[in-house]
Amino acid sequence: MAITVVGSVAFDSIETPAGKRDRCLGGAATYFSLAASYFTDVRVIAVVGEDFGRRQEAVFQARNIDTRGIEHTTGKSFFWEGSYMDNLNEAKTHNTELNVFAAFEPKIPDAYRDSEFLFLANIDPVLQRRVRDAMPDVKLVAGDTMNYWIKDHRPALLEVLKGLDILLINDTETRMLAGKSNLLQAARGVLALGPKTLVVKHGEYGATAFHRTSPKDERSETFRAPALPLEEVVDPTGAGDSFAGGFFGYLASQPALTPRAFRHAMFYGSVMGSFACERFGTERLQQLSRKEIDERFILFRELTHLD
Amino acid sequence: MAITVVGSVAFDSIETPAGKRDRCLGGAATYFSLAASYFTDVRVIAVVGEDFGRRQEAVFQARNIDTRGIEHTTGKSFFWEGSYMDNLNEAKTHNTELNVFAAFEPKIPDAYRDSEFLFLANIDPVLQRRVRDAMPDVKLVAGDTMNYWIKDHRPALLEVLKGLDILLINDTETRMLAGKSNLLQAARGVLALGPKTLVVKHGEYGATAFHRTSPKDERSETFRAPALPLEEVVDPTGAGDSFAGGFFGYLASQPALTPRAFRHAMFYGSVMGSFACERFGTERLQQLSRKEIDERFILFRELTHLD
Repeated sequence: MAITVVGSVAFDSIETPAGKRDRCLGGAATYFSLAASYFTDVRVIAVVGEDFGRRQEAVFQARNIDTRGIEHTTGKSFFWEGSYMDNLNEAKTHNTELNVFAAFEPKIPDAYRDSEFLFLANIDPVLQRRVRDAMPDVKLVAGDTMNYWIKDHRPALLEVLKGLDILLINDTETRMLAGKSNLLQAARGVLALGPKTLVVKHGEYGATAFHRTSPKDERSETFRAPALPLEEVVDPTGAGDSFAGGFFGYLASQPALTPRAFRHAMFYGSVMGSFACERFGTERLQQLSRKEIDERFILFRELTHLD
Repeated sequence: MAITVVGSVAFDSIETPAGKRDRCLGGAATYFSLAASYFTDVRVIAVVGEDFGRRQEAVFQARNIDTRGIEHTTGKSFFWEGSYMDNLNEAKTHNTELNVFAAFEPKIPDAYRDSEFLFLANIDPVLQRRVRDAMPDVKLVAGDTMNYWIKDHRPALLEVLKGLDILLINDTETRMLAGKSNLLQAARGVLALGPKTLVVKHGEYGATAFHRTSPKDERSETFRAPALPLEEVVDPTGAGDSFAGGFFGYLASQPALTPRAFRHAMFYGSVMGSFACERFGTERLQQLSRKEIDERFILFRELTHLD
């Protein structure tokens, strides 16, 4: 089943202990699309400027990603500059230029309207909601957000959460959104805001899924996927979006949304997140094979398999 | 098979967001012994002062822990005061009084000498080595250490590491000991110092075991046990020592040290660490049943089981 994703397509300048890259292709929708494209058809809604040319377009084309929803306009694309010199788990932002993204009005191509899965990447919750309302027939909606929207755009964000099947955020965002420091309590607080499922991304420690269930039995409804200790983390940018792409892409490729499919999707999310970190920007995600992905899936399974 | 453990038996004054306790029974050897006692026979070597009376002794007796190696001397027992008000993952130390521990000279009762397992809890590496050398016939030796010994007593610590089968430390200590920020590289650096196996404790994210193997295949020799997201973390003091006790106690209870037994031991370590956090001090570890422990083991298995 096809996924439509709305989010940022951007240029990133990144510095990590492994080196430096200027203006490489980035953005949440880019990482998500590339990761999901190994599992299912992906359609992107975004806006880019004149600096987005054939070379960038070719990255999407090579993975058969539908880019008819990427609007080209005058000006420059969204630009982010950051570094991870002290701590690979936390980016230090040096510069953010919204550019054409400041006036982004998502337009949904007719060809996208039969998408059965919708992913609302981390953008203004007002836009997330507009896209969600414009696609009422989708079967499953997942989304992401960040500290900025949680703190300063809470009412709009709460409206989005009501319409989400799955929210994917990190530990800090979960605690901030619920106003609780204990993760399990925070997770329950977030689930009470609307999402049926919360996936908390722990970076190098994997991710945990919490499902809304009866208060009696909530623990058995929790699932944790590990992350692989990596030989070298070259660049963690986009790992969370790649997790979401692998997770949602795998789910969309399955005939039914069983608990088993969901658990496998968590592992595929971790697999794609781990690949993303191995090279700068989207380099690694551009040139994977399904065989490499499945080999790493098996490695992950062994990593936590008891018997 | 019986375990001998050498380490601290102490009094702790602890403050956490859940409340406060003054001078409750603590110390690495105490947490370790209680956790391991649900799996096998445990014998303790430690020193205590006149403040350690019948009430404290009764805690060990109730779990059939051999205390003949606990030396009673004049003065006060080791005392630690700390809080976790800002961050449940990191204790803030307010006061440490070594007291009788400052002149600790471990004495090994003859009745302990047939122990097949030895655990060197976090104490001066000079003492760790002395105990290890005095028990040359043990089958398996594991140990713990901390940032203080890594930074300021490195030569003595390196001597201990050479004689260890298993080292159990946390992420920060692993990175500090190897001088590398990447966890996998740091783990390999630590393994090169002597231990055949390194277990890195991740607190609320579980633990990862790294084994010394051929350079080609190191990843398949890595194993991660999850931790359970807890309803309420009342007091994280001793969780790492309880992990070690559950881990080593389970291993000692097994007929053979198979990879399967090792993986199960990692899960039992996580199980005992999670129980330790549920009440102040050793309260929860004093009154568990094997049935409760095995039920939580099953919960943990479900938490990461794929199919």
